[in-house]
Amino acid sequence: MESTTRSRLALKLAEADQSHLLQFWDEMTPGQHAEMASDLEAMDFQEINSFFHSAMKVSDSSRQEKMDARMEPVPREVLGSVTRDRDCLKDWEEVGLNCVSQSEVAVLLLAGGQGTRLGVSYPKGMYDVGLPSHKTLFQIQAERILKLKQLADQRHGANCCIPWYIMTSGRTMESTKEFFSLHSYFGLGKGNVIFFQQGMLPAMDYSGKIILESKSKLAMAPDGNGGLYRAMGTQGIVEDMEHRGIGYIHVYCVDNILVKVADPAFVGFCVQKGADCGAKVVEKTNPTEAVGVVCKVDGRYQVVEYSEITLATAEKRSNDGRLAFNAGNVANHFFTLAFLRDIVRTFEPQLQHHVAQKKIPYLDTQGRLIKPDKPNGIKMEKFVFDIFQFAKTFAVYEVLREDEFSPLKNADSQDGKDTPTTAKHALMSLHHRWVLNAGGHFVDENGTRVPAIPRGGPTGGGTAVKLNLKDGTDLPIKCEISPLVSYGGEGLEGLVKGREFRPSLVLDENGAHELVKNGV
Amino acid sequence: MESTTRSRLALKLAEADQSHLLQFWDEMTPGQHAEMASDLEAMDFQEINSFFHSAMKVSDSSRQEKMDARMEPVPREVLGSVTRDRDCLKDWEEVGLNCVSQSEVAVLLLAGGQGTRLGVSYPKGMYDVGLPSHKTLFQIQAERILKLKQLADQRHGANCCIPWYIMTSGRTMESTKEFFSLHSYFGLGKGNVIFFQQGMLPAMDYSGKIILESKSKLAMAPDGNGGLYRAMGTQGIVEDMEHRGIGYIHVYCVDNILVKVADPAFVGFCVQKGADCGAKVVEKTNPTEAVGVVCKVDGRYQVVEYSEITLATAEKRSNDGRLAFNAGNVANHFFTLAFLRDIVRTFEPQLQHHVAQKKIPYLDTQGRLIKPDKPNGIKMEKFVFDIFQFAKTFAVYEVLREDEFSPLKNADSQDGKDTPTTAKHALMSLHHRWVLNAGGHFVDENGTRVPAIPRGGPTGGGTAVKLNLKDGTDLPIKCEISPLVSYGGEGLEGLVKGREFRPSLVLDENGAHELVKNGV
Repeated sequence: MESTTRSRLALKLAEADQSHLLQFWDEMTPGQHAEMASDLEAMDFQEINSFFHSAMKVSDSSRQEKMDARMEPVPREVLGSVTRDRDCLKDWEEVGLNCVSQSEVAVLLLAGGQGTRLGVSYPKGMYDVGLPSHKTLFQIQAERILKLKQLADQRHGANCCIPWYIMTSGRTMESTKEFFSLHSYFGLGKGNVIFFQQGMLPAMDYSGKIILESKSKLAMAPDGNGGLYRAMGTQGIVEDMEHRGIGYIHVYCVDNILVKVADPAFVGFCVQKGADCGAKVVEKTNPTEAVGVVCKVDGRYQVVEYSEITLATAEKRSNDGRLAFNAGNVANHFFTLAFLRDIVRTFEPQLQHHVAQKKIPYLDTQGRLIKPDKPNGIKMEKFVFDIFQFAKTFAVYEVLREDEFSPLKNADSQDGKDTPTTAKHALMSLHHRWVLNAGGHFVDENGTRVPAIPRGGPTGGGTAVKLNLKDGTDLPIKCEISPLVSYGGEGLEGLVKGREFRPSLVLDENGAHELVKNGV
Repeated sequence: MESTTRSRLALKLAEADQSHLLQFWDEMTPGQHAEMASDLEAMDFQEINSFFHSAMKVSDSSRQEKMDARMEPVPREVLGSVTRDRDCLKDWEEVGLNCVSQSEVAVLLLAGGQGTRLGVSYPKGMYDVGLPSHKTLFQIQAERILKLKQLADQRHGANCCIPWYIMTSGRTMESTKEFFSLHSYFGLGKGNVIFFQQGMLPAMDYSGKIILESKSKLAMAPDGNGGLYRAMGTQGIVEDMEHRGIGYIHVYCVDNILVKVADPAFVGFCVQKGADCGAKVVEKTNPTEAVGVVCKVDGRYQVVEYSEITLATAEKRSNDGRLAFNAGNVANHFFTLAFLRDIVRTFEPQLQHHVAQKKIPYLDTQGRLIKPDKPNGIKMEKFVFDIFQFAKTFAVYEVLREDEFSPLKNADSQDGKDTPTTAKHALMSLHHRWVLNAGGHFVDENGTRVPAIPRGGPTGGGTAVKLNLKDGTDLPIKCEISPLVSYGGEGLEGLVKGREFRPSLVLDENGAHELVKNGV
């Protein structure tokens, strides 16, 4: 039997010019034979090769001609801004909340990534950044969904449902599912949390040969967060959404601790604009900030990586003095189901993979594992925003970074950006501001009120020493408000107005309690 | 004789209710007697007491009623902006350069501070942040003055002079003078560098008693950078300026590594506006950023400390979406000599001292030195911007933070803001941008061009690891351009256009040279 398997595989691989994958066959155990055989049987090498060739072609060509000439900023009429359209916010929120109350809004979480850069081996969503409550990113997001359902039900006397679709990868599926069942789905109901899995693709060397990570195992990697669309098709997610009567989907990445899941204002804005596709952005204010920008390229919407444009373009400004290309992408998108259906059924195959050059450990011809010190091959990925180009009506919604965006990417370190510390501070600083805006106050041990921005010297004036965060904000007062108490700062007056708190405050289902100094 | 001295002092101190200063007289040596006697003789205790009482009154009252109601933003017509008035920049620069060429512009440096927070005991201006050239802040500023003189001379065929007035304190005078003479005044000419010294005031406890730091020594502290105006009067600086035919003065703090000394565009803007007083500002974009803002209070211009306003006011926005109070003070001011003359001769005495509560080591009644762990007294300071209120025509000039403001305040540390590292990066990042905008390129070891913003992944898209600075900019390519080569990015085409450099580049009088990797 083995020999026939071998010859069948040999034929299949020969046709795809990947015969080297069997070079260690004779040194494998029967168990390994079976394992590798099933892996290889399942793969469509012709397709993988075609992915490789078109991906390489694109990445070369795009490296040739500069983006700059082809780029246009987002037109004002397509933009909604929380700072420039303040009068509309209430309406938008009302429209969005109404959609939620009709159970038309679903939340889709991109959670395929592992916490590798964070220095952990488990899914990022299970990370605890060290808040007083020690809630994980998953729990914070789950509780925001719960609270939003509550708000919608109260406002419209309904009993709505906000299904939560969670895309994992081969690496994160098991542990993610376990984690959710262990926490009884955080009260959302098992049926309302739908897991599905993004695809994997082999890593290849520059000549298109699939890389072996062991004698019997191919080096595989998730196919990027844009793998979403293929996975939605292969795993019946679109049908499930149709079945539930979903009209609008909010897609986001797991790593943003401030994410407003199914943000009613964002949803309402997009719905009112009649958009089939929308992107939430934050203003890019520094030309050399490392963030991709939403803009038009050859008349179609797209996210352009900061590494793709020249400094001259990055520094270009509009008449109002803002950077011309200032729509900083925060991986926070709105889609209609109709749009996603077209994508999944028609356009997804047209999307080309992006090439990510990587250092990929590989077996040499002697079967020794080599860890390269410079990139030796590629992983092929699609990005979630690759489908913007297909939008008929695109909308861009600009929000405040300090209110809505603080991604968790790196482990703590000197000069560290996007770390557990910065994420924790961003959340506590937001909640601190919620309390102040609801009429609460913080007092120090002597009972004197702490200013909104704790006292230092004016620049060039005073001389007091104070530790600041790099973004210029102060180390925040320790303050955490459970999403079960407030989704976006609403409904706090009753709890805090006119009250004075010590700077270690937790507001949760059990009310307001102060933490002992060493409690956090 | 001693007894007569003692009784004379006793009388003087008794009248001022400071008799406790002599409590250890009998335990002192004759030398200490002489020293203390001369200190006490020189002091006007009635004046010091009156300073104390009015300062305490102000600080109490100001703590009472909130600023908010009385604040107004800077009106647009008073504002000049490098991002919103780009068409005017050339004119302003031309006007300013013309004033410089007429020797009408002087530079005044506030350098009274020691590097205490930096962890060094010498003047901040002598600090080397670790640039490839290892130039100190003093040298960088001196060379910018030299270059500006050159530019003005070339443009107008003149041979102008830009006198540099340097205010030190009792603590920094000696070492500063030595440092300059050691470096032969960096080529500016001894006669064009004028040192003068700000006053000192005793530290006092909350009851108004002067604090002893030893049995024979009073605890003294500089009287704040606003001590400038009194010092200008007592040390004939105004007369010296009149004598030299100065019309305009640019005043700034030593700690900003990016400072554009005598910035012609800033000077030209203020002159064209007919302003007697002007402030350079950077846009405050985050409501809780710890920076003082220039605004109107009760109709007069002033800098309001961030700790003095409520969050609601800090978050207030204008119709264009910007923060209403966004004119972030960077201690960078323009004055006409006529205005300074009025200040020094008429208004300075009306300025009240600000109270800075401090932990001040003191002798207890047994003569033991006590180091308090909470504030036990005050230092009295005036701020350089206290005179804005007297301006007849005030102007505000908004520049880009990344181009012009990176103060050095703290030693390096995790989460450190305004450190040697951030200052060094800010300068190298600016010079990197100068090279790119002049048509130069940087290439990596493989000869491939490094993107303006080095490659990472788009937010939420790619997966590459990259170390960023907290402000979102990348760690800059190592690039330093001597001020002797370019004052503000001008005149670099000839040196860099079309050329490719390794990312460790130094441009100085000797041309362009690359540094060996471990060179920096």
